[in-house]
Amino acid sequence: MVDGLNVVIKLKRKSISDLILAFDVKPLANFSLTAVLTASSGTSVKEFTITYTTSDFDILATNNDIIYGMGTESTWKSLNRDLNIDLQKGLNIGEKKLTVKTRNTQLIRLVMNGKAMIDNIRLIASAHEAYAKTAGDWFVANQKPNGGFSIDVNRKLSNGALQLKSGWYSGMAQGQAISLLTRLYKHTLDHKYLLCAKNALNLFDIDSKDNGFRTKFMDKYVWFEEYPTLPSSYVLNGFIYSLFGLYDLSMSGNDSHCVKAGLLYRQGVDSLEKMLPLYDTGFGSLYDLRHLGLGSAPNRARWDYHSTHINQLLFLNTIENKLIFQTTAKRWISYMKGYRAPHN
Amino acid sequence: MVDGLNVVIKLKRKSISDLILAFDVKPLANFSLTAVLTASSGTSVKEFTITYTTSDFDILATNNDIIYGMGTESTWKSLNRDLNIDLQKGLNIGEKKLTVKTRNTQLIRLVMNGKAMIDNIRLIASAHEAYAKTAGDWFVANQKPNGGFSIDVNRKLSNGALQLKSGWYSGMAQGQAISLLTRLYKHTLDHKYLLCAKNALNLFDIDSKDNGFRTKFMDKYVWFEEYPTLPSSYVLNGFIYSLFGLYDLSMSGNDSHCVKAGLLYRQGVDSLEKMLPLYDTGFGSLYDLRHLGLGSAPNRARWDYHSTHINQLLFLNTIENKLIFQTTAKRWISYMKGYRAPHN
Repeated sequence: MVDGLNVVIKLKRKSISDLILAFDVKPLANFSLTAVLTASSGTSVKEFTITYTTSDFDILATNNDIIYGMGTESTWKSLNRDLNIDLQKGLNIGEKKLTVKTRNTQLIRLVMNGKAMIDNIRLIASAHEAYAKTAGDWFVANQKPNGGFSIDVNRKLSNGALQLKSGWYSGMAQGQAISLLTRLYKHTLDHKYLLCAKNALNLFDIDSKDNGFRTKFMDKYVWFEEYPTLPSSYVLNGFIYSLFGLYDLSMSGNDSHCVKAGLLYRQGVDSLEKMLPLYDTGFGSLYDLRHLGLGSAPNRARWDYHSTHINQLLFLNTIENKLIFQTTAKRWISYMKGYRAPHN
Repeated sequence: MVDGLNVVIKLKRKSISDLILAFDVKPLANFSLTAVLTASSGTSVKEFTITYTTSDFDILATNNDIIYGMGTESTWKSLNRDLNIDLQKGLNIGEKKLTVKTRNTQLIRLVMNGKAMIDNIRLIASAHEAYAKTAGDWFVANQKPNGGFSIDVNRKLSNGALQLKSGWYSGMAQGQAISLLTRLYKHTLDHKYLLCAKNALNLFDIDSKDNGFRTKFMDKYVWFEEYPTLPSSYVLNGFIYSLFGLYDLSMSGNDSHCVKAGLLYRQGVDSLEKMLPLYDTGFGSLYDLRHLGLGSAPNRARWDYHSTHINQLLFLNTIENKLIFQTTAKRWISYMKGYRAPHN
């Protein structure tokens, strides 16, 4: 029970890497908890505050002071906040666009104001399970009747040549949700997660033009779009993430949804096997094939996406063991060391 | 009339660039005409001989002495020999593989041996019309019943992963033959050339697997192969040359062959328009799409083929005036100056 102003609490910290602040809280009136931090920014060390308060906004930032709303209901809730991430998010929306070196972040003190019941307050190194459960519960709570998790912001690609109106769905988002939900089901055996994953499969039948994200390459190879643009963009990494989701669901049971996920996965792997060479420039990889629809220059992948492609292929190869995934991953690794495919 | 040994003749030469030796000859018994040349090879000037003789072989070379057969029939024939080309061809098949700087080649003397009637002997700067007519007559004489000009050598690509057995046909060869024949018809009004060009169109209906060279990309876009490999190789420059041939025939009349050529040309331009981005690596162009069928590294075009691609696109743009041909040519030119398409 906290009731007062500037109540400073001391914490036994195990190590500097334990910067996840976890606590259960039931606000009884206005309440806030503030973490005072120091972090390296440029050549100097600066002080920052991150405050979690009883408000309905998501985030506010003024110079070095960042505030997150935790809602105003007087119910118990569990917070697991990564102070470094909350610091970076706050600095990113502020006017100064400060950057910090997160490895040097230090927690100085915690200060509470207002009235609340507090329990289990601690600094921990990781909170994967809590994060997974929070995300899974969000998916369960926010799934649309069509099984989708709608993305409610407009999105422009290629300087506006490709546009997505708020309310679009992503094959990558659906696939990654399925991957999380099936794992969460396996861990908790709570069927709501598996049911949510199965419902998330429905949109894999809906074409991009019908507010889904399915398309075909050359009317021949099925593709699940990260961005369901018209014309299609065929983003490589997003497609492979969607395949991982399909695979995970196919391995989660024997009912019609799981069988269907397996069929879609096989179709997708077949598409990938045939189309993968189109992403190979001879000295790097392409992020997508949007240039085909737009008649524009190819959209080369920067090295971190190129690395993602390689990791995805190597990961997929642990399931599929196909020569083209192996040889392509090997060649793409060599591109990062300066190798170029020969010319004629 | 020549009848004797080592008959040396002197020629008035207009300039050093006139190294095409033209003459009409009717051999009456064994006969040869030898051109004695000097040419720069490495750091020294060497003497070479090129002999045209009454024999049925094509070419023989021993050290610096090269012999071409002119056949043994005792009929009038017109020869138009580019001495520099005959010199290079001869040196290329010899054991020493000498190379010469052709701009320094000098004709020293001409020597005749044997018995023949000779007329119109002269050195000229060019013989385009004679060459065109010789080639056109060759096409007329050597066209197969299916309209093809068969290529009677085995051909291996990609270290033998792709193989063509002697007797294959090339869409590029057919197209270039049509381009020559239709021009020759326009110049001579001799219908045998136009008829030959029309017959050459027939193979554009025959798939690669049936000893033709037609294929499709993704079962969707028709393509005429320079090399009718299985799987398809989709060589870019050869395809565009085949389109030039189709265009030339389509502009040569209004009968069914010309109309059909026009339809095939339109289909081909449509394929090119859709597929051209696949050849763009973001810093150069691909020679072909063989990597799709083979699952291999892409086959990057060396700069002289990249230049050919650019010239073909610019040429095609004088007919088609399509934005994608213009913007692609412009970008591909910029690649030669070091520009790279941006990464994401």
